[in-house]
Amino acid sequence: MAVRTVERSSDTEPLLSFEEFHARLRAVGEERYHHQHPFHLLMHEGRLSRGQLQAWALNRYYYQSVIPIKDSIILSRGPDPAFRRAWRKRIVDHDGDSTSEGGIQRWLKLAEAAGLNAEQVHAGTGILPATRFAVNEYLNIVRSRSLLEAVASSLTELFSRDLISLRMEKLRQHYPWLSGGLDYFEARLTQAPEDAHFAVNYVYENAKTRAEQELAIQALRDKCDILWAQLDALYFAYVQPGWSPPGAFRMEGK
Amino acid sequence: MAVRTVERSSDTEPLLSFEEFHARLRAVGEERYHHQHPFHLLMHEGRLSRGQLQAWALNRYYYQSVIPIKDSIILSRGPDPAFRRAWRKRIVDHDGDSTSEGGIQRWLKLAEAAGLNAEQVHAGTGILPATRFAVNEYLNIVRSRSLLEAVASSLTELFSRDLISLRMEKLRQHYPWLSGGLDYFEARLTQAPEDAHFAVNYVYENAKTRAEQELAIQALRDKCDILWAQLDALYFAYVQPGWSPPGAFRMEGK
Repeated sequence: MAVRTVERSSDTEPLLSFEEFHARLRAVGEERYHHQHPFHLLMHEGRLSRGQLQAWALNRYYYQSVIPIKDSIILSRGPDPAFRRAWRKRIVDHDGDSTSEGGIQRWLKLAEAAGLNAEQVHAGTGILPATRFAVNEYLNIVRSRSLLEAVASSLTELFSRDLISLRMEKLRQHYPWLSGGLDYFEARLTQAPEDAHFAVNYVYENAKTRAEQELAIQALRDKCDILWAQLDALYFAYVQPGWSPPGAFRMEGK
Repeated sequence: MAVRTVERSSDTEPLLSFEEFHARLRAVGEERYHHQHPFHLLMHEGRLSRGQLQAWALNRYYYQSVIPIKDSIILSRGPDPAFRRAWRKRIVDHDGDSTSEGGIQRWLKLAEAAGLNAEQVHAGTGILPATRFAVNEYLNIVRSRSLLEAVASSLTELFSRDLISLRMEKLRQHYPWLSGGLDYFEARLTQAPEDAHFAVNYVYENAKTRAEQELAIQALRDKCDILWAQLDALYFAYVQPGWSPPGAFRMEGK
């Protein structure tokens, strides 16, 4: 695949301390995490229409549906039973078990609260090709890069709790008809920080050189780009100029 | 990966004749090929700035650079020496040989004519993440689907000659400073129809059921989406609203 420009660091550069490493990760989040994407700003200001929220719920479902596939790939690459035991939790969180419906099912409830048909959402009819491409790139990353980078690409979870807290408050305030569909976010408030805690420690302990630390930071940057690009595509298709590509979901009214 | 909705056709449905099959392919092109994308319409009306053309040349280079990788994957999956001999031509067309510089080099000349630095273009610095995701999906398709579908995904070449003829005329008319960089398009005027002729015959002869014919048509549709999404991303980042994501190429002036 074509050349990817990563900040080069010679092996003579010192390893970052845990605090320094963590600060570098947080700086990536401040610059690139999708909390500051214009589509989210509109959402939090109550300026999205029902149709626009439907487009968001529909497209984001594709992302949700791929997460346990992504985590299964990581599971398949983890040589250590203790690592796999810890990582397996993520698949349960999303796919559910006998006691819990799981995140995918919860997202479908959100989509239904937004007025969509769950079966059609599940089938993926009308999602934007750009959503598919961005999300599939997440699979490419966890398949083709090192296990360390695959794990590091999950570290957007370091930033998600704050965004989810804010989003729940704003959705309840501006779109009360969605309030019955927020179980997904409720669950993520505790799941995401637990997962991030494990992953950041794993990455710090297993990055043995500064170059590996830099690759991990780049993987987080690339993951942020994947989230950001999904919102760019939604904005372009459903906000401004509002041109959805051939075959994609069309809003009724607005 | 998540469910992909493809038009289902039972095995009782009759095979399409060559003419019917060809008509179905052309209908996909009329609906989805990027000749009618607003970014191309602006280009052909002379309404793109130099900076916007630079963004186009830069991002499209990533696509060009991946084409011979895509064709090498198809080559690696072709069990028949005669097929590989025919397909090998494409790699030569793009990578060049002792007598010809090849399409990638020609695209760099276009980028230079647009005022970009060839080394930076080659390094891919500043391309849109959405470009990378869309183009990488082309690699996903030729790796993960059947050889028939991989070959069918090249069939946008059925439509490219008309677009390239028009584009050369319009670029010369509206952006005369680009005129020295059009060798890429000149070469494609003959290469693309030759390649499409081989590929459409191959797909027709090797699709043994109506279901396989439908999969081939879907592969062409998906390839059109890949081209379309690249222009959506350019439009969003550099035309309207003109928001390029963190880290991407910024236009100087406009």
